[in-house]
This record gives sequence, structure tokens and C-alpha cells, in this order.
Amino acid sequence: MFEFRILGICPETGARAGELITPHGVIPTPVFMPVGTRATVKAMSPREMLEIGTSILLSNTYHLYLRPGVDLIRKAGGLHRFMNWDGPILTDSGGFQVFSLSGINRVLDEGVEFASHLDGSRHLMTPELATSVQEGLGSDIAMCFDQCVELPCAKDEARQSVERTLRWARQSQEAHTREDQALFGIVQGALFDDLRSFCAQELIQMKFPGYAIGGLSVGESHDEMYRILDLLNPVLPQDKPRYLMGVGYPTNLVEGVARGVDMFDCVLPTRNGRNGTILTSQGRYNIKHGRFTEDWGPLDPHCDCYACREFSRAYIRHLYRSGEILGARLCSWHNLRYLIRLVKGAREAILNGTFPLYRASFHRLFEGGES
Amino acid sequence: MFEFRILGICPETGARAGELITPHGVIPTPVFMPVGTRATVKAMSPREMLEIGTSILLSNTYHLYLRPGVDLIRKAGGLHRFMNWDGPILTDSGGFQVFSLSGINRVLDEGVEFASHLDGSRHLMTPELATSVQEGLGSDIAMCFDQCVELPCAKDEARQSVERTLRWARQSQEAHTREDQALFGIVQGALFDDLRSFCAQELIQMKFPGYAIGGLSVGESHDEMYRILDLLNPVLPQDKPRYLMGVGYPTNLVEGVARGVDMFDCVLPTRNGRNGTILTSQGRYNIKHGRFTEDWGPLDPHCDCYACREFSRAYIRHLYRSGEILGARLCSWHNLRYLIRLVKGAREAILNGTFPLYRASFHRLFEGGES
Repeated sequence: MFEFRILGICPETGARAGELITPHGVIPTPVFMPVGTRATVKAMSPREMLEIGTSILLSNTYHLYLRPGVDLIRKAGGLHRFMNWDGPILTDSGGFQVFSLSGINRVLDEGVEFASHLDGSRHLMTPELATSVQEGLGSDIAMCFDQCVELPCAKDEARQSVERTLRWARQSQEAHTREDQALFGIVQGALFDDLRSFCAQELIQMKFPGYAIGGLSVGESHDEMYRILDLLNPVLPQDKPRYLMGVGYPTNLVEGVARGVDMFDCVLPTRNGRNGTILTSQGRYNIKHGRFTEDWGPLDPHCDCYACREFSRAYIRHLYRSGEILGARLCSWHNLRYLIRLVKGAREAILNGTFPLYRASFHRLFEGGES
Repeated sequence: MFEFRILGICPETGARAGELITPHGVIPTPVFMPVGTRATVKAMSPREMLEIGTSILLSNTYHLYLRPGVDLIRKAGGLHRFMNWDGPILTDSGGFQVFSLSGINRVLDEGVEFASHLDGSRHLMTPELATSVQEGLGSDIAMCFDQCVELPCAKDEARQSVERTLRWARQSQEAHTREDQALFGIVQGALFDDLRSFCAQELIQMKFPGYAIGGLSVGESHDEMYRILDLLNPVLPQDKPRYLMGVGYPTNLVEGVARGVDMFDCVLPTRNGRNGTILTSQGRYNIKHGRFTEDWGPLDPHCDCYACREFSRAYIRHLYRSGEILGARLCSWHNLRYLIRLVKGAREAILNGTFPLYRASFHRLFEGGES
């Protein structure tokens, strides 16, 4: 029911192009996965997500567990039917959100005790519960419950979090029963090379169908992120998909692909979209800026999305200044399309043997134009 | 360039079905016109407006005059190109908004002095300026600048407002130069039958290509509204379109059609949509109500819109409770489609000779089901 095939490798970098087969469809990799936190990609409709070329969505266990609750989604026939998205879905385990969103949390051996950010109610999230909730949601890919740490992080603390993450990975795997759902392991270890390697090797022993790299894009430098990716690239099994969690900045996507990453997710395109920040092939800018007042060109002259085909910067700036929902819609739409196309372009370049050129050209245009 | 043809009349009520030809297309009447206050129908995109069967949009002179300003829209090539809507557009004159939105306003013989609701800046809106702004916007149908009064209203005050409205109508007409834009007169007169008749007869002398009925749906009872419509129905020329301004409640639409009205506009479907109030053939309700928690049916079982075809009440309720934009989008979408279809249905019934049946059936279902 699950299969990962590599269709091409860049001889210079090792970047991979492949496909991941799931019960809800085939995902060409590398792939950018838009985030539908609360069973909707903010400001977008499912048919728009199809139109922009989305091949897999991510949704958040923590949020759906608290509201509307997994029982309701189970009654709906699962998350796919609830949100009317028939393509593949990946759910995270909530491991990140119980730390980042909950005001109060306490890490115990059995799990994390936390207070809901919605109403303060107390909950205990365990590897077993995170697995059971994800089975109830019925995602195609589920994640092990893991312990994230903040950066900077002392080595002792990082070691403990790796040990706990590994123990919880075993418990998640034991609790997991759905054969139509793949469970991925998550490599933690902060910025410590030996802990990252150790964590990866231990997870590989457990034979997961895919491996995620967690705990990055949380404040470290690009170079630190790339060092960890370079370290893990030869360690992780070549024949399994690798997923770099929470990363969506264009530069990081291209460099992640160059370091053997197959899957990415981030709220950046929609969050940026709602505040008027536009990601383009020629850098980023904010549409509210006065210099766009009489700019009749599209958001991004190299983009093929609805927003870029049909509306001017001057009009979209007017929508933002007026607080109109269509402004948030058009910019989210464009940003998502831009990232999906950026990663899709990397895939084609890998298959065509031109990835190093694609990478260099991206950097020249994107960073050259960044404002 | 403008022509109004009557294609059928209900022998029992006098309700009319026709078509209004404009430079941007033919408008089948009676018609409901969605409102794009600030050059966008809130939460909707132009292509969605086409999909739900919109044949003409309304936009607001007051709002566009203040932001982004008519100069910018003129530079864009007019409002159609600015907002990417190639169908007909009607603009109001701002007469209503200078009273309802401006904190401070003073009625002078030459116009209305008002303070912008955006930044408090002082402006003088005159019949000449309102006409010139609408010519700059390039709408297909423009409205004379008129004086609205609040209800209840003393007769003296109403008489003065009618006299001013008539004088301003003459000035608007004299100032008007665009041949590709029709200028409609507006009947005022509060709830005084003699003033309403007088105002209508005076306007008719000026030979406008269409007549609007203003100053209703501002707090009077349904019966009072219907009395004024009954009064004006035989007075207004049969061969010109009649537009009942600011009216969008389903019952009023059907009863307006029964009293010879051809055009309606209202923010009700989008405003209701954003707060979760759903208009349906079987009455209205708020989707946030707990009884929809596990309701897997559509918003309206008799509707053919995207929201009703693809999403459940339980899911849309979840979107509202979570503050998700898609909730506002789907409910605005449905409400607009419902009103457009309601009026379109009335048109077909007039042409088929079944309008009295249509009207009775509407009342039975809509008011029977209202919650």
C-alpha cells in the first residue's frame, strides 16, 4: 500500500527525485506540503489546492484533538471526508505543539501534560494517544510522538530528549495498527552531531517506512541546519523518504533538496500571505508598500497562478489596505503556488540532470532580488 | 447602448421579466446585484461571482472615492479592469454613505460636507462630484446624488429632502457626459405617499433611463415598504427598469418583484455569511448552533452551490468556531447563490406564467422554516 521509488539522483549533490505511493494517491518527490492546521489550509478551498498542484496536505493532531475532537472526525468518516480532501494527508503527532502552543506543560516519562491553548483544560498526550488520534483521523502518513527542545539547548537536555523520543517512537510503533497508514520516525538531537547520528541509527533499527528530521527551523542559522542535513544524508536509508519538518523558506527548500530531503511543510506561505508578504522568484516583498500604489504588473511575473494571471499589485495592495479577505486569499494562493512550483521545478531539474544549474539560478534570482 | 425590454408580465401581480442591455453585457431582470463595496465582493473572487450566476455587481462611490481614490482607478483603466470584473457594474452615488458612515456631516444646498470614516478628513460631496467620480469609475449604471433621511422623519424634513434630491438630480443629469453610462434617478420621500408620488413624477419629467426607489429598508415595517412599492408601481414608467435600493431580505425580494421591481442590491448575503447566518429555501439559521455539531447534510439541501455540493454543516460549523476564512467564504458563497437563484427563479416563473405559485411556495417554505 506504501512504496517509495527513486526515479533519479543528481550525481553532483545526491538530490533525489522519486514518488511515494499512498492509499490516496502518488506523491511526486521532492514535495512541498501545504499546512491545513485545523482541517483547512487557511484562506484556501480544497479545489484551489488541487488547482495549484498540491499533492499532499499536512494537518495538525494537536489542533484537531482539541477541536473538533477526533470522535467527530471519525464519525465524519475520517479527516479526508471531513475536510473534503481526497488526496494524501500527513498528520504530525502534536509533539511540537504541546510545547510551542500550550502555556503550561510538563514532560513526564509517559508523555506530556499540557493545558489547552483554547480553554486551559488539562490533557496528557502520550505516544499511544497520539497514535490512536492519528489513526482516528485516518491520515495516510502519521508521525511518532516526539520530544522537541528549544534552541539553544544543553547537551544533557538534548540527550534526554533523544532518549525519550526513541522510547516514545517504540511505543508509537507498538501502538500503531492501521495498515493503510505509514508511521514515520523523527530524528531529534538539537544541534549535536553525535546525538543526531545516534538518534537516526536507533530509529533505522526500528525499520520505519520514512524518517523525519525534527527540531530544525527553530532559530538556528541556515549553516547549522545544513550541517545537520549533511550529517544525516548518508546516515538515513537511501530507499526511504526523508521529511524535513516545518521548513518552508525558499532558500532552505532548495538547499534541503540538495541534501537529500524529499518532503517539506511550513505555514510560511499562508501566514506570509495573510500579512501581505509575497514570495517570488525574484525575492520577497510586502505588497502594502507604497511603491506598489500604481504598479499594474502581477505579484510575480514568472508565476502562472490565478492571482498573478488576473490581478495587479496595485489592486491587491488596495485589498490589503482595505482589510479585504480577497487580499489574504490571493497572496496565500500565490505563495503556495510559488513554493509548490519551486520544489516541483527542483524535481524536474533532478530528472533532467540540471539540478546544480537550477540551484544556482534560484539563488542568483531569489537572493539577488530579496528586499 | 442601453435598452430595456420586457419579455413577460405576470397577469395577476404585474411582476415583470425582462432584460437590460449595457455596454458590458445583458442583465436578465429581475436581478439581485451582489455588492462589492470596496471593489471586491467580500470573501469572493470574480470568477466565483461568475460561477454563481452574477450578471451585475454594485460598487460604492463613497468608499472608492476615499480609498483608493478615483484617480488610481481611472489610471487602471476603470473599475472593471481594476477589480477584474468584465460584466456590468452599477455604482451608487454615495448619497447614503455620507449620512450613514460619516460621523459628522452637514447638508448644504450645494452638497454634503462630511468627515471621512477612515481618517476624519473633510470632504464636500456634490451632485457634480458624485457624477464625475462615477464617470471616472466607468460603471455601466450611475446613480444621481440624493439626500437620504432617517426614519421616522417629520414631513417638513422629508419635503426638503425631496426638493433637494430633485434639484441634485437635475444637476447630476446636467453634469453627466458619458454615453456609455446610464444615469438613474432616485425617488425619495420617506413614508409619505404624496411626497413619493411627487418625487417620482418630477423625475419622470427628466426622462431618466431607469428609476431607483431609495430610503427604504432603513427600519420601516415590511407593510410600509410594500405600501410605497404599491404606490409607485403604476406611477413609474412601465418601460424603464426600477431598482429598489439596499433590499436583500428574501421575503422583500419576492414581494418587490411582485410589485414591479426589476433590480435589487444588498450586503445581507455576505454580511450574514461572515457571521454564520445561512439563508435557505427553508428559512434561516446560524451555523454556529450546537445542533449542527454532527450534521453531515449540506447548508441547504435545495442548493447547487460549491459549499452545498461539497461540505457538511458539521465541517462548516467547525470552520466558524475556529475562525477560519473558509467558513466566511463558503457561507457568503451559498447566501449569494441562494439570493441570485431566488430572483432568477422568480424571473423564470414570470416567463412561465407561474409566478403566483412561486411566490406562495416561497413564503410557505421560507417563513415556515424560519428559526
